[in-house]
Amino acid sequence: MSTPPLHSALEPLAFLLGEWVGEGEGSYPSDIRDFSYREEVRFWHGGKPVLLYTQRTTDRDDGAPLHTEMGYWRPLPEGRVEVVISHPTGHAELSLGSVADGVVDLASTSVVATATAKEVTAVERTYRVTGDELTSTLAMAAVGHPMTHHLAATLTRA
Amino acid sequence: MSTPPLHSALEPLAFLLGEWVGEGEGSYPSDIRDFSYREEVRFWHGGKPVLLYTQRTTDRDDGAPLHTEMGYWRPLPEGRVEVVISHPTGHAELSLGSVADGVVDLASTSVVATATAKEVTAVERTYRVTGDELTSTLAMAAVGHPMTHHLAATLTRA
Repeated sequence: MSTPPLHSALEPLAFLLGEWVGEGEGSYPSDIRDFSYREEVRFWHGGKPVLLYTQRTTDRDDGAPLHTEMGYWRPLPEGRVEVVISHPTGHAELSLGSVADGVVDLASTSVVATATAKEVTAVERTYRVTGDELTSTLAMAAVGHPMTHHLAATLTRA
Repeated sequence: MSTPPLHSALEPLAFLLGEWVGEGEGSYPSDIRDFSYREEVRFWHGGKPVLLYTQRTTDRDDGAPLHTEMGYWRPLPEGRVEVVISHPTGHAELSLGSVADGVVDLASTSVVATATAKEVTAVERTYRVTGDELTSTLAMAAVGHPMTHHLAATLTRA
C-alpha cells in the first residue's frame, strides 16, 4: 500500500516521521529499580492531519517486553500540538505542547485511569531531533511523588 | 519475530485475537450524512496480560481514510474487562465491560478530550464473535445528543 502525500498541517511535525531504535534508562523514587531498555518508536501518517505513534520497550538484557504505548499527535496552528496516548497500564494521557526547531515539549492536560490502574497525575515529555538522532525524556507525578524524572532515551532513525 | 505464548489472563478474550475485515454502516442525528465504510480490526498480544487493538475504516466507495483508533484491552477477574482507546479526533475513551459467551459489552467510564475536540460524553460498544464472524456496534452521546446508535459492522476473520 502506497503512502499518501503528507498533509500540509503535518509539515511542522515531519521531522518525527520514521522508525527510531535505540536505548534508554529509567528510574523513579518508588519501589522500582533503575532499569535499562531497548526502545522502538514509530511515527507515521495516513494522509490526514494527524501523526500516528507507537512505541515499545524491551529489557536490554533479556529482551522481555516492558512498556508499550500508542496514540495520535494532532498539530495545531502557531507551533502547538495536542497528543492522545493510550497505555496498557490503564491510563490515557492527553497533552498540549509546543513544536519549534526540532524540539517538542509536552505537558499533560489530563491523565485518566481505569479503576485498577496506578495513580499517575501528570506527565511531561520532551522529544528532540537532530539529524537522525532522537532524544527523549519523560517525567511524571505518580504514586504520591511530585513531577520527577523517569525516562531518558537516545534513538537513531532506522 | 515469533509470538510469545498467550498469557493465561487473556484466555477469556482469546476469541477476539486476529485480523478482521468487513463493512459497516454509520449514522448520527448530527449534521453528518449516513455513510458506509470498510473496516479492518486487529487484536494481538505480546505475551503480557493485555490485548493490543487497532482499527481503521475507509470509505466504501473511494477508499478514502475515515476513522482510526488504537488501544489496550485489560482482562479483569470475573469476566470483566477494562479498555483504553485513543482517537485521532483528540479523545481518549476508558471503558469497563463484561465478557461472556463470545460477547463483550463495554460502557465508557470516562471520555476525555483535548481542547479542540468535539464534545463526546459517553460511548457504548458491543462485540460479538460467532465462529469467524465479528459483529460490532457503537453508540455515543455527543454534540448535545443523548446515547444514540452510531455504527454497526460485520467483519470476517482474515
